[in-house]
Amino acid sequence: MASTTGTVPSMSDLIQAGANDLKAETKADPQLQDLDASKLRITQSTSLREVPEPNSEGVWGVKQCSDHMIKVIWTADHGWHAPEIVPYGPLTMMPTASCLHYATSCFEGMKVYRGFDGKLRLFRPDRNCGRLVTSSSRLALPAFDPVELEKLLKAFLGLDGPRWLPKSQPGNFLYIRPTIIGNGEELGVQVPAEVMLFVIAVPWPDLSTGQKPGAPPKAPGLKLLASKDDIRAWPGGFGYTKVSANYGPAFLSHMEGRKRGYDQILWLFGKDFQVTEAGASNFFVIWKNKEGKTELITAPLTDKIILDGVTRRSVLELAKERLSAGSKDLQAGIEPLDVVERTFSMLEVEEAWKEGRLVEAFVAGTAYFITPVSAVNFKDTEIEIPMSNGDSGKYTAMVKNWLYDIMYGKVQHPWGVIIEEKE
Amino acid sequence: MASTTGTVPSMSDLIQAGANDLKAETKADPQLQDLDASKLRITQSTSLREVPEPNSEGVWGVKQCSDHMIKVIWTADHGWHAPEIVPYGPLTMMPTASCLHYATSCFEGMKVYRGFDGKLRLFRPDRNCGRLVTSSSRLALPAFDPVELEKLLKAFLGLDGPRWLPKSQPGNFLYIRPTIIGNGEELGVQVPAEVMLFVIAVPWPDLSTGQKPGAPPKAPGLKLLASKDDIRAWPGGFGYTKVSANYGPAFLSHMEGRKRGYDQILWLFGKDFQVTEAGASNFFVIWKNKEGKTELITAPLTDKIILDGVTRRSVLELAKERLSAGSKDLQAGIEPLDVVERTFSMLEVEEAWKEGRLVEAFVAGTAYFITPVSAVNFKDTEIEIPMSNGDSGKYTAMVKNWLYDIMYGKVQHPWGVIIEEKE
Repeated sequence: MASTTGTVPSMSDLIQAGANDLKAETKADPQLQDLDASKLRITQSTSLREVPEPNSEGVWGVKQCSDHMIKVIWTADHGWHAPEIVPYGPLTMMPTASCLHYATSCFEGMKVYRGFDGKLRLFRPDRNCGRLVTSSSRLALPAFDPVELEKLLKAFLGLDGPRWLPKSQPGNFLYIRPTIIGNGEELGVQVPAEVMLFVIAVPWPDLSTGQKPGAPPKAPGLKLLASKDDIRAWPGGFGYTKVSANYGPAFLSHMEGRKRGYDQILWLFGKDFQVTEAGASNFFVIWKNKEGKTELITAPLTDKIILDGVTRRSVLELAKERLSAGSKDLQAGIEPLDVVERTFSMLEVEEAWKEGRLVEAFVAGTAYFITPVSAVNFKDTEIEIPMSNGDSGKYTAMVKNWLYDIMYGKVQHPWGVIIEEKE
Repeated sequence: MASTTGTVPSMSDLIQAGANDLKAETKADPQLQDLDASKLRITQSTSLREVPEPNSEGVWGVKQCSDHMIKVIWTADHGWHAPEIVPYGPLTMMPTASCLHYATSCFEGMKVYRGFDGKLRLFRPDRNCGRLVTSSSRLALPAFDPVELEKLLKAFLGLDGPRWLPKSQPGNFLYIRPTIIGNGEELGVQVPAEVMLFVIAVPWPDLSTGQKPGAPPKAPGLKLLASKDDIRAWPGGFGYTKVSANYGPAFLSHMEGRKRGYDQILWLFGKDFQVTEAGASNFFVIWKNKEGKTELITAPLTDKIILDGVTRRSVLELAKERLSAGSKDLQAGIEPLDVVERTFSMLEVEEAWKEGRLVEAFVAGTAYFITPVSAVNFKDTEIEIPMSNGDSGKYTAMVKNWLYDIMYGKVQHPWGVIIEEKE
């Protein structure tokens, strides 16, 4: 299981990149302290917070965090201080704080799942922890050993999990947000001398199927608006990392899309309208190529303009393992497909649509999980995308179910990492 | 004076853009309140802060802010609340605040000058206030009438000016930082429902000539490292605005440059190595073109990849007015020059250097004011730039002096806006 092949880099490469950053930094100044989960101090909350009901308005508000949070300070003269778990509450920072002016911040998006076997799981947390090191390093913020962050996450979720994801409600999740902010008070345009790593957990709506309470019923599938003018990321930039600077500047296009009745922006790049990402998710198309072979296609990581999504990577790995020709896992009656990571353009998607070769499309990410795409507006042409199951394409549904089963413990899989809980 | 011509857009265009944004927004929801300086409430500080000595370590720390700050809240349901001037102090925000995750923040850099005539002045504050509206709108954050912000700045600096820029110390300045942050608590990737505009003032070192106390003496002129791989901004992005997302991602290159002994990065773009900006300043070259004519050249605004600098614009306007052939202001013995805004490349700069046609170079911006450039490293070739006055080129020195005289009231000029002080 979880095997990787040529086009998908091996599972350890991102982690290794983080570890190399760490080694370089540690070597540069051996006096600086590494992040060390064994130094964790826990201050338990004495006034517990209200847990919103699943899919309630409180959940859709996306701000009712759990009882505690992780906080770790890094200073240029000391390195990483002792990690703390403290009651959730406001942060205090000076108006000169680096992150308020210079976007010296980056984050991760993860979920913790209450399984149908009663267990609490993270999904491939090594990937997220490693990527946070990559993002932090891209901003010249401190690196750390991702394994230590994973240990802290387990301690935090072991504490808040039992109350916020009760065993009586399997199939629910909390969204986890590890965040690094430049907290130093010098207003000069410079690398901050103080940084804070914090982690919060918040009930989050199921955007892949969830219906907002009171909202008019919505047809299944996302409608995407292909961006004509705004470019999300570019070679030599930072689109491959989860730095905050990739998000705010995208809001204007996103708002424009919403006004026009679309759910997300499909970000294009270059004069040939290369397809990159959708909203804040990776984008996949399944089509028959000109030779009649079925392909699952998505943009490659090589240009460093798209995020190396954990869900993206998992989709590619599962599809290779279970949907390729000759796979022993291939279900009866399912046509095998080739998994392709290459630059492809909206012109190709449009051509496939005109020629009746489009099979399905979906986005993949932590927030939107696996959500089918029903239409893409490209240069005012509405490209309709088939959904053979009615509310989804059939490959999309299969991939989603496989991931769901791993996340919620319906099958045991190395990607589902069990958290020991404090009862 | 302050005349503008074809290539430099008229003084009112940026302001007009802001006003148009405002009108569009107001029209969209006439219930929302505009920013209104007449509603200002002032809470005077009862415990005044220590004012650091000019050029002291306290100044170089760039965090000892003045006694007060401006704070204005905007909420999606109300619009702009009543502005406040309150004692300077920490901000409190929830860990889910938009600006900590999504770079929903933008700012301005301005200075307030204590003139040799005893008066306090801002330099073209209409430009900065208008540009902040442009930056805020680029992030889908609220617009406002820039004239109202200018009124608030005058009230704030009229209050803190007398103590922080005493009349006994003419020739000093404070750096002013108007900042807009997305303060809304919803963690979803969305336009924040609450925003804060704040303005702080801080003593700031004179980076154009200042020598850090205790640091080894530094040769005059900045040494720039032309970035080979990192690209600061791109067409379809946000490089023309002062959004926070333009800064943090540049720190890594900046740090690399510092390690190699350079003061700033010279940001290039495209396969032909187009020259864009230097560090966080605009970049100017004076050369003899191939026909032997002297030119002041800088990158154009048309691609929207460089900042529309207030100092940049002022340099261009003054040079046209006072250095052009036939100008009545042209000093005796000074060869006239042509002012050119066009895309130009490092290959052209290198060629001019090899052919002995480079005259001088400088950066222009609020933080660095006018600072001569003594060298540019381009692909490991050290391009040395003449400094005919020893510590500066002669044109650079003239432009700097003209601006200095306006800022510090040695001449009366419409760009120098006098602030009425509370004595």
